[in-house]
Amino acid sequence: MSARRAGIDVGGTKCLGVVLDDHGAVVAEHRLPTPKGPDAIVDTLAAVAAELAPYDSLGLGVPGLITRDGSILASPNLTDTNDFRVGPLLAERLGHRVWVENDATCATVAEWMVGAAQGATDFVMVTLGTGIGGGVVAGGQVVRGVHGFGGEIGHMVLDPNGVRCPCGRRGCWERYASGSGLGWLGRDALTQAPLPRVVELAGGDPAQVRGEHVQMAAAEGDTGALAVVDTFCRWVALGLANLTNLLDPALFVIGGGLASAPEVFLPAIRSHLDHMLYSGTTVRPQPSIVFAALGPHAGAVGAAMLPQVH
Amino acid sequence: MSARRAGIDVGGTKCLGVVLDDHGAVVAEHRLPTPKGPDAIVDTLAAVAAELAPYDSLGLGVPGLITRDGSILASPNLTDTNDFRVGPLLAERLGHRVWVENDATCATVAEWMVGAAQGATDFVMVTLGTGIGGGVVAGGQVVRGVHGFGGEIGHMVLDPNGVRCPCGRRGCWERYASGSGLGWLGRDALTQAPLPRVVELAGGDPAQVRGEHVQMAAAEGDTGALAVVDTFCRWVALGLANLTNLLDPALFVIGGGLASAPEVFLPAIRSHLDHMLYSGTTVRPQPSIVFAALGPHAGAVGAAMLPQVH
Repeated sequence: MSARRAGIDVGGTKCLGVVLDDHGAVVAEHRLPTPKGPDAIVDTLAAVAAELAPYDSLGLGVPGLITRDGSILASPNLTDTNDFRVGPLLAERLGHRVWVENDATCATVAEWMVGAAQGATDFVMVTLGTGIGGGVVAGGQVVRGVHGFGGEIGHMVLDPNGVRCPCGRRGCWERYASGSGLGWLGRDALTQAPLPRVVELAGGDPAQVRGEHVQMAAAEGDTGALAVVDTFCRWVALGLANLTNLLDPALFVIGGGLASAPEVFLPAIRSHLDHMLYSGTTVRPQPSIVFAALGPHAGAVGAAMLPQVH
Repeated sequence: MSARRAGIDVGGTKCLGVVLDDHGAVVAEHRLPTPKGPDAIVDTLAAVAAELAPYDSLGLGVPGLITRDGSILASPNLTDTNDFRVGPLLAERLGHRVWVENDATCATVAEWMVGAAQGATDFVMVTLGTGIGGGVVAGGQVVRGVHGFGGEIGHMVLDPNGVRCPCGRRGCWERYASGSGLGWLGRDALTQAPLPRVVELAGGDPAQVRGEHVQMAAAEGDTGALAVVDTFCRWVALGLANLTNLLDPALFVIGGGLASAPEVFLPAIRSHLDHMLYSGTTVRPQPSIVFAALGPHAGAVGAAMLPQVH
């Protein structure tokens, strides 16, 4: 008996829908631009679902704080979506159940089922993009939390006197250890010393330095950029060390844009983490660090797989 | 069919054993001083178990990093106990299975089963003692981690440039938000301004100021001590905010010595946490903060209940 499982990932710019076969392979795909406003989003999702039909189940990955009944409580990346009952409204429109989770949770499920974390009972997915997204699997269960808001690892404060975060606090992990954090660390380093190659890659304007410029210069072997990357990797490791002390995962799965260059980041993250973990390397087994196996389809694939983990 | 469940809490100074009836009530109790060294500890545990007999199951709560097979990998509070196979050795001696968990996990189980967190599917126990111990329940399961080392919340780094911690890192949560942290914050405040009542309670010597002196002066309404308590509560709340973003618990159960004076701490912790949580108070439901219902028997009671949560 084969099942066609459909999933849609609602991104800031596009809604990407897929259909999976029994083995988790993508057998159909459809996408539409993400419109503004709740009504238009429901229309778009219904249109994507119609293109994916027929299917046996439909899951939805959406950004932000998602309640257990499938509503968006707040979403920084979608317009006018506070208290948006996206799941119930789409289910009503389509006349069938819709499974809804945070998009980072969906990516976590995809890596767990068919990606880099297959077979793990305890792991943390860390998506280093513009911010930091995440998902936690503990004891063979996705950690959702009582309201469904678990896994907001990017807003773990690592320095209460640190850089301001749009969330209102200071020193959140994602201010340092994300793609935008790498850019900030690059611009911050420029206040101490010149980074000619990094600035050149940024078109000659120090104010335009972004994470990708630091990453590119580091990949070329530029010494100054490598020092910035090392600082960046220390921040990444600091968050991973906290998560290890709390959750004792077997592995971390690193996803997001930075996962495209593991050779630039992995050795330094590994080295800093080894030094940071409570009890040191002498006794405590260290968690593995691997990079995500799935690409930009991970959110939609995981959304399609939500019925399998509930 | 009634069962007698026995549990022993191995502390730095004493081994406390209890037997519970079917309702979780303590019906027998026996204690012996904790000796030094693995062989003597196993002898003592066997002697306590003999006094508790007859029983239907025996659980053990031990401090430190405990592996899933019941061995102590490292324990700061017991002498010569690295790689101490306490569970297997005691089981061999007694001729029956022994359930073993970290002592903070045992206290968490006790609060969950018969204490302040009854019925919760998602909560975090935070024991504010000399350090910070903890236990996490997520999705109706105790979070143990892949090796059994989960719940080491006290070594979550909150300031990488902060106070040195014996674990080798800087700025661990327990350096600020524990009983010893409160003492440190008091002595640190003394470098800026006098705290006459606090120093008086410490016998007139500023170097002898401990958390209890700050707490007593604050309970009397001393303004300087109240300011130190407010700073302390901000550190407590910062860790709780991080745990909320990660785990979305329904409640925190605060245990340990500081739980004896909730009126001194709770309003300020509550107020700081409300301001710190991502999205603020406007949309996000806030976790409850309650104080532990069980006293110093919690570890032994929870150890006795381990078979119920495995």
